[in-house]
Amino acid sequence: MRRRFISMAVIRRLPRYYRYLNEMLAAGVMQISSRELADRMDLTASQVRQDFNCFGDFGQQGCGYDVAALHKEIKSIIGLDQEYKIVIMGAGRMGCSLLEHFGFERRGFNVLAAFDNNPELFGKSINGVTIHDVKKAEEVCATVRPDIGVLTVPASETKEACAILKKIGVKAIWNFTKGELGVSEEEIVVENVHISDSLMSLCYRLTELEDALYGD
Amino acid sequence: MRRRFISMAVIRRLPRYYRYLNEMLAAGVMQISSRELADRMDLTASQVRQDFNCFGDFGQQGCGYDVAALHKEIKSIIGLDQEYKIVIMGAGRMGCSLLEHFGFERRGFNVLAAFDNNPELFGKSINGVTIHDVKKAEEVCATVRPDIGVLTVPASETKEACAILKKIGVKAIWNFTKGELGVSEEEIVVENVHISDSLMSLCYRLTELEDALYGD
Repeated sequence: MRRRFISMAVIRRLPRYYRYLNEMLAAGVMQISSRELADRMDLTASQVRQDFNCFGDFGQQGCGYDVAALHKEIKSIIGLDQEYKIVIMGAGRMGCSLLEHFGFERRGFNVLAAFDNNPELFGKSINGVTIHDVKKAEEVCATVRPDIGVLTVPASETKEACAILKKIGVKAIWNFTKGELGVSEEEIVVENVHISDSLMSLCYRLTELEDALYGD
Repeated sequence: MRRRFISMAVIRRLPRYYRYLNEMLAAGVMQISSRELADRMDLTASQVRQDFNCFGDFGQQGCGYDVAALHKEIKSIIGLDQEYKIVIMGAGRMGCSLLEHFGFERRGFNVLAAFDNNPELFGKSINGVTIHDVKKAEEVCATVRPDIGVLTVPASETKEACAILKKIGVKAIWNFTKGELGVSEEEIVVENVHISDSLMSLCYRLTELEDALYGD
């Protein structure tokens, strides 16, 4: 299926739809209306219907959506029905924390290897993923090309690490660093993780709560 | 100022506006139109104008927005002009990674202390923040009440850690765990961090890129 042009705003909502549908599946919910889905996601029902229309037609007027079918469809639209191969660039605290807790495998991702320049880490293994000398990245990835590089190096090492990811052929970077990547978005898709956004939302809601509690 | 009801969708966009305005300030941009801002954020210009209208009127028809004024206003709306006091619950890899790299101080947050139940960590300090025995949490926070608790404990310890956060009087939890919190949203505001959303967006864009490159 060739995709129509989809706005970034819709793309950003897909993972949230997918998360909610996952929860509903787990809770045994079979059908959901655009209204209910909209309420859970703080959207309007018409926005939900519009979003799904971007990809085709998978609801019936008046009947709502079949949760399992919608889940499967969105999974496929996001591309999660493929098994992406991942390498981790930088096995410091952030890299190791992801390897330990993120659950790549459970989510359908195959982590091939982690790389670092700290000799003390070489050969160690976290959740079955071995940490290699970054100098051996090309060698390690010679037979299996990774799709996604997770960038968890210090800001000062970003450019160098990126150049290596490019060399070993990754097509996408999941970026946790603050440094300049030095790759063009035409050659490699980059997604920056902005953990701070959710802290700011929390601050807003805290201010709101305090206003409500203590007045002005 | 008492706020009007603001939808969660708008609240979610505030941190992004704030980030972009930060970048513009740093780049010396003085004025920006709703059109330009909309393009950068993958929104429509009318959506941007509507969002800002929720909070008051800070643009002039035809002149665009004053970047510095808008930045200041949004900072205040989010509540970032106050200095929030933070404690970190769980000084494992995730907690320490945040302490090391997140830049709480630079962002205007004051981290009072970190807590853990691993005796090996007691007394250690990361970026000026000391790790204490979680049993001493009440004692450490007796004189200064923290506003926000960052929850970075293993899933199995979530409920217990949450109960302690409640006891020491936090009003908001920035949650990195998968466990059940066991607190009601009326007493404590909770913001869950969903790092996986951005990985899913990346997958979508990677699939799109591959479709474009290799066709169907």
